[in-house]
Amino acid sequence: MSEPTRKNMRIDLDSLMNRLMTLGQDGALEGGGVCRLALSDTDKLGRDRVIGWMKELGLTVSVDRIGNMIAVLPGKEDLPPVMIGSHIDTVATGGLYDGNLGVLSGLEVINSLKQSGYIPRRPIAVGAFTNEEGSRFAPDMMGSAVDRGTLDLNEALAIKDAEGFVVGEELSRIGYAGEAEPGHITPHCFFELHVEQGPVLEEEGEVIGVVTGVQGISWTEFTITGVSNHAGTTPMRLRHDAGYAAAAIAVAARRIAGEIGGYQVATVGVTELDPNLVNVIARTARITVDLRNTDEALLQKAESLLKAAVDEIAESEGVTISSRTLARFEPVAFAPEMVDLIEATAKDLGLSTRRMPSGAGHDAQMFAPHCPTTMIFVPSQGGISHNIEEYTAPEHLHAGANVLLQAVLAKADEE
Amino acid sequence: MSEPTRKNMRIDLDSLMNRLMTLGQDGALEGGGVCRLALSDTDKLGRDRVIGWMKELGLTVSVDRIGNMIAVLPGKEDLPPVMIGSHIDTVATGGLYDGNLGVLSGLEVINSLKQSGYIPRRPIAVGAFTNEEGSRFAPDMMGSAVDRGTLDLNEALAIKDAEGFVVGEELSRIGYAGEAEPGHITPHCFFELHVEQGPVLEEEGEVIGVVTGVQGISWTEFTITGVSNHAGTTPMRLRHDAGYAAAAIAVAARRIAGEIGGYQVATVGVTELDPNLVNVIARTARITVDLRNTDEALLQKAESLLKAAVDEIAESEGVTISSRTLARFEPVAFAPEMVDLIEATAKDLGLSTRRMPSGAGHDAQMFAPHCPTTMIFVPSQGGISHNIEEYTAPEHLHAGANVLLQAVLAKADEE
Repeated sequence: MSEPTRKNMRIDLDSLMNRLMTLGQDGALEGGGVCRLALSDTDKLGRDRVIGWMKELGLTVSVDRIGNMIAVLPGKEDLPPVMIGSHIDTVATGGLYDGNLGVLSGLEVINSLKQSGYIPRRPIAVGAFTNEEGSRFAPDMMGSAVDRGTLDLNEALAIKDAEGFVVGEELSRIGYAGEAEPGHITPHCFFELHVEQGPVLEEEGEVIGVVTGVQGISWTEFTITGVSNHAGTTPMRLRHDAGYAAAAIAVAARRIAGEIGGYQVATVGVTELDPNLVNVIARTARITVDLRNTDEALLQKAESLLKAAVDEIAESEGVTISSRTLARFEPVAFAPEMVDLIEATAKDLGLSTRRMPSGAGHDAQMFAPHCPTTMIFVPSQGGISHNIEEYTAPEHLHAGANVLLQAVLAKADEE
Repeated sequence: MSEPTRKNMRIDLDSLMNRLMTLGQDGALEGGGVCRLALSDTDKLGRDRVIGWMKELGLTVSVDRIGNMIAVLPGKEDLPPVMIGSHIDTVATGGLYDGNLGVLSGLEVINSLKQSGYIPRRPIAVGAFTNEEGSRFAPDMMGSAVDRGTLDLNEALAIKDAEGFVVGEELSRIGYAGEAEPGHITPHCFFELHVEQGPVLEEEGEVIGVVTGVQGISWTEFTITGVSNHAGTTPMRLRHDAGYAAAAIAVAARRIAGEIGGYQVATVGVTELDPNLVNVIARTARITVDLRNTDEALLQKAESLLKAAVDEIAESEGVTISSRTLARFEPVAFAPEMVDLIEATAKDLGLSTRRMPSGAGHDAQMFAPHCPTTMIFVPSQGGISHNIEEYTAPEHLHAGANVLLQAVLAKADEE
């Protein structure tokens, strides 16, 4: 038997698949998928199972006051660990991979080390962060935000869901109000393997998404007030049609995305007219515009072009348009050396790659300002996510987990 | 005292206003306006009151099998009567004038004749037709459509409202399932005085709308099916956005109305997206397009341009769009000699006029194919209609009713 070396270690795909499918039983939905809303009874089942696996692997497990669970494998030296992290909570109709892949592939990195007997210089930590989805309690990325001090612990503990249940009380109820202080581990660096949740890798036929950062997000709600009138008796020149203004804004948003190009996206996902009748010109309309870009200056340009378009539409249609910011996050750029490492590692493994931003938010972005951080994406079939039909092929899961393993080991042997 | 002559007769405005305000008490709404849905208890109250007035004026009243109430004043000769008609049913939040003005001004024409002692050659008939609004039972213009044979009597009697109540049974319940055969009177000609329900007369500062016909109507519902995806992770080039396609159709409809010009109008009154979430590209959208024109060829051109635009949008966005016709009526042209008569009569009375089509449907259009027919419009303040704030100034009501009186008398003395 040859001595184990870092370079020829591989993830045990059967073990990874087994963990993914087994965890998928906790909160399983009829027809596939899973409902494991943060701090629910099914979240407790999933947490118990993951904690069990962490202990089976002989890891030291801590649960902090916001319920983050962090398992540590000691290294040869007592240095800040390389951390792998994600989440196991899901949306109400979630898939088996979103978040779970990042946590369970971390456990498989440990498993591979255990199996091979290889001990890296640095400790390796695997974190499962509370309430990344934000489906039950807003904001999302709650556990990692508290860990990194972006969100105050006591503020987070006091947050209520739509039915009035409180984060702190729900943590206690399910037995996950831990005693560790959030942020008690400052990682050497941070990795998150995640399904893409978009169609790009599949469309381009690439296997590994080398994630360069997270898009900035700008959400604006526009409320348009015009004059309701009869659709037959009101000549076009005398109209102040809130529904037309809403449509014109949606078309302008699409045009602006095209003009800026690159990673700029623009979506009008909500449109509501009142009174919403065939033969009545709408009095009011409500729409939302979701703008995202990897570049803050370009995102601001998109916002500015949108504002100009909205003003011009209000003027020409004779309607009033008020706006409200629903969310605004600046783009996050991952550390170039971490991004380069993922790309090089994938290439060493003979895997095709594509550099891309993340269009969605992830726990990793909370770590990015504090330590070198990056993410690895694997293809989502049909780009489908937050859906019971979410699927990533086993060979792609394996590819991503092997890139994670090799990149983690490279960093774990650093001084 | 001078002998009464046709030309110096005038409507008694106090009496007309008194009838309008009194009828407005039957089904009066808090804050103004009236709810007198067809064949409801309040419709019965209004009918009883109008029948009472008809009898007070010494008229012969018939109620037919669809509930149309027709009162006749004999003329010097037993010839087909000049008919004045409209309706007294309202929408759920109706005004005091829509329909009621047409019936009550007819009674005031009779009242003026009675007061003056003038007896015209032909009989004069005043009709109040069942369920013009169609708010409770579809289709609208039910009573006049049955009168003219456009809608089968038994078919109409079997129509149900949203709660399952049947026209025939409701007519019996309120005591208005009459015994006369619908259409038992074939008029010499037909007049309807109505509020404009649009803003044109007010905007232009004119008093009398000389109605040249009724616009043709084309209502189409479009159902768009795209692919729902994450608003952040789906590049613009990979989108099949049902919401964007809906907006693009609405903007195209506006453009088409502008290109055709004239009396062409286009309205997208209904827009619904699914799932209608800020950060999700809509999977499906449903919109309606209401196209109207006075000219059938131009209306067909608008439909054809819309179809081409929809096809192009479906192609370029990669979505499927199905369409369903919700309503389609050809334009109705009123008899030129009747239109000319209204214009000349208004000018004789020193009233400013404007030729215009009706953008809404009216009982008169059912008579237009059968006898010389036209309508007279008076200004609607702010163009507001189907609303408790519907208002027409008394001097405008008086002007319209005087035009009606003089035009009716001109026709009533014809051989």
